[in-house]
Amino acid sequence: MTIRFYNARILTMEEPLEIFMGELWVKDGKITYCGSPVSAPITQPFDREMDLQGNLILPGFKNAHTHSAMTFLRSFADDLPLQDWLSKQVFPMEALLTESDIYTLSKLAIAEYLTSGITANFDMYVNSDAIAQSSVDTGFRTVIVSGLNNFVHSLKGLADCYETYNHFHPLIRYQLGFHAEYTTNESLLLGVAELAKTYHAPVYTHNSETNAEVADCIRRTGKTPTAYLASLGVYDYGGGGYHCVHFSEEDIAIFKEKHLSVITNPASNLKLASGIAPIRRYLAEGINVALGTDGPASNNCLDMFREMFLMTGLAKVREEDASVVDALSVLRAATVGGAKAMGLSQCHTLTVGSCADLTVLDLHKPNMQPLNHILKNIVYSGSKDNVLLTMVNGRVLYEKGCFYLDEDIETIYEKCNKITQRIKAAKK
Amino acid sequence: MTIRFYNARILTMEEPLEIFMGELWVKDGKITYCGSPVSAPITQPFDREMDLQGNLILPGFKNAHTHSAMTFLRSFADDLPLQDWLSKQVFPMEALLTESDIYTLSKLAIAEYLTSGITANFDMYVNSDAIAQSSVDTGFRTVIVSGLNNFVHSLKGLADCYETYNHFHPLIRYQLGFHAEYTTNESLLLGVAELAKTYHAPVYTHNSETNAEVADCIRRTGKTPTAYLASLGVYDYGGGGYHCVHFSEEDIAIFKEKHLSVITNPASNLKLASGIAPIRRYLAEGINVALGTDGPASNNCLDMFREMFLMTGLAKVREEDASVVDALSVLRAATVGGAKAMGLSQCHTLTVGSCADLTVLDLHKPNMQPLNHILKNIVYSGSKDNVLLTMVNGRVLYEKGCFYLDEDIETIYEKCNKITQRIKAAKK
Repeated sequence: MTIRFYNARILTMEEPLEIFMGELWVKDGKITYCGSPVSAPITQPFDREMDLQGNLILPGFKNAHTHSAMTFLRSFADDLPLQDWLSKQVFPMEALLTESDIYTLSKLAIAEYLTSGITANFDMYVNSDAIAQSSVDTGFRTVIVSGLNNFVHSLKGLADCYETYNHFHPLIRYQLGFHAEYTTNESLLLGVAELAKTYHAPVYTHNSETNAEVADCIRRTGKTPTAYLASLGVYDYGGGGYHCVHFSEEDIAIFKEKHLSVITNPASNLKLASGIAPIRRYLAEGINVALGTDGPASNNCLDMFREMFLMTGLAKVREEDASVVDALSVLRAATVGGAKAMGLSQCHTLTVGSCADLTVLDLHKPNMQPLNHILKNIVYSGSKDNVLLTMVNGRVLYEKGCFYLDEDIETIYEKCNKITQRIKAAKK
Repeated sequence: MTIRFYNARILTMEEPLEIFMGELWVKDGKITYCGSPVSAPITQPFDREMDLQGNLILPGFKNAHTHSAMTFLRSFADDLPLQDWLSKQVFPMEALLTESDIYTLSKLAIAEYLTSGITANFDMYVNSDAIAQSSVDTGFRTVIVSGLNNFVHSLKGLADCYETYNHFHPLIRYQLGFHAEYTTNESLLLGVAELAKTYHAPVYTHNSETNAEVADCIRRTGKTPTAYLASLGVYDYGGGGYHCVHFSEEDIAIFKEKHLSVITNPASNLKLASGIAPIRRYLAEGINVALGTDGPASNNCLDMFREMFLMTGLAKVREEDASVVDALSVLRAATVGGAKAMGLSQCHTLTVGSCADLTVLDLHKPNMQPLNHILKNIVYSGSKDNVLLTMVNGRVLYEKGCFYLDEDIETIYEKCNKITQRIKAAKK
């Protein structure tokens, strides 16, 4: 399949960030040309040529933290204190999910990612088989991260998954991880550190999401979660933390020294009243920052435009300074920062040879006019309403409100509603 | 023009908030039927009958604070401290706007309102003629509020406008107001109080947006802005405040006693680092809360879905309690709360005889699935991508991404870009 986008504004996300008019060609999932308009007659025929009418192509957003299959809990358990939410709603209902449920619920999330220009996710959930298959079947790119904890999985299972899913399909990668230090005992954590050493691999986990979590870790171990994990060797080969809302000076120093990524989830941190992460500081220290939606039970939507505005807006109100964490920093986090955190070095910029993971934003909408500063418009004013098209690995999976997946979208909705109804009925 | 919407979910916003399956008829700008499905043969012919396929009709959102014509500054002056933003960017460029510019720039904002399901705005800007005409020409509903201050307008002009624009066109109303106590001298404020008495009319103004503003007012007058304005009689006939981020106990008591409305603008308060308003407290006191986007230079987008999520999300993180300011409170603020604040008693619910100001939300989108709780979905997960149709006063002005205005949307974009370029060139 070959595609030519022309008459396009292009933002490659290579530095310095600049938009130029040009065209972009795609063949067999890769970018084969990205540059100035081609005026000479083009001899090779394309399967499809699209006049983008000045609309903007940029790399797809990387949703660097999510739990896709939790779509079934969207708007079921809101407006509840965090502990109630987890113990009374989330855990009992998750226990009722089958592998087939997780497959279908993940597909619903993938459809939603596409509406927001997201081309890859970093997905932590209990069933890697179902996640991997839902992505491969829809054509979406997923980096799976282990949700190992005291109750599910084992170190052997983690090692098996690591080897299996890093050789499963070009759309799938697997990273070492565990749910959180407060759900994973020290023996398991030492085992994870050992695996990190074996594979020379980074490790990812929920880290310092709430004040209570940090205080509890200090009470138990005498250390913050970051310091504790570092002391066990978990972070010796890099990796990162999801949330990173409540960090000490020492935590920041560890993240800096070990080149760990902060993966921030601002909407979730609001909705669950967890707090506002010190993003200005992380950026000032040169720490890689990525952006994620978290799962649909705690957000509730999977919308990178919301996250982008929140990343800058919350930093501004936190620091009482409207000039901090500017729009360009946010765009970097949502694209190249995410790719770096997830280990997707082939999908981060629009350059020849890279994977054709991209989105096209419609500038012919009131919220993008006038064209004072397109990059700022995306962050401060953009919405899913601007997403014209989302392409993953050279395939158009979403265009003008329609999905091009292996299954009809209304069928996916119907299945998800049935799953939800079944689980609600069983819980009663 | 008669229209029948059938096979619809309907949320009238009458209490208790409930969704039912039914239909809604519109004739000459009014709702003529809203209730159960009509099974008997319908004898009267409709100009148009729409099968909504289970999608949701609800009252249009009321954008209860904005400065529409500031679209020209969108993404031009971001990431700047507030004072720099106002003095170095906003004021010098606004001084260059003509009446015709304001007319066109307001039209761009109206188009954007429609994409977000907004059917009325509460617009403070310097030229009432241009604002009124842009709304009448596009078919949009606007409550204009005076931006009187030491530099523009006069008390005589305010009285003239009040009389003129309350008898100008069914789509236009006018409310007394002034920019802010810090830009309006005491003699003018006493004059406004006198006009409020003459007309038995409410008064609206920017109030306690920043800490610095409150501290400065106390230094000058010995009182907070609310207490100061109340002492002058400005609020004797009701009204409200835009922003209300930094309120004292006395301010809250005054708002409660005088039945004033808090009009909150959460995105703007983030972007300009102003703070987070104590919305939980206002609601607990029974104060009417409305929701607004503020102008496009300080937000930058005109999107009620963003504001709705922020209203609850910021309250949760402020109070460190995920259960506060629930989704239904937010929906009320965005619809009936706004209508009450703006004095639009004929447009607040979907009831027979009310103005047909409504929006249809597409539930056949991933972010609305599964259908656990549709009202929570709207607030936590909704986006402009869900807006299928927006109708003002019985006319469809926006449907499936297309605008039905008096002027082509691309022409409006072109004119707005020309205005912006001219002003940028003149400022250099």
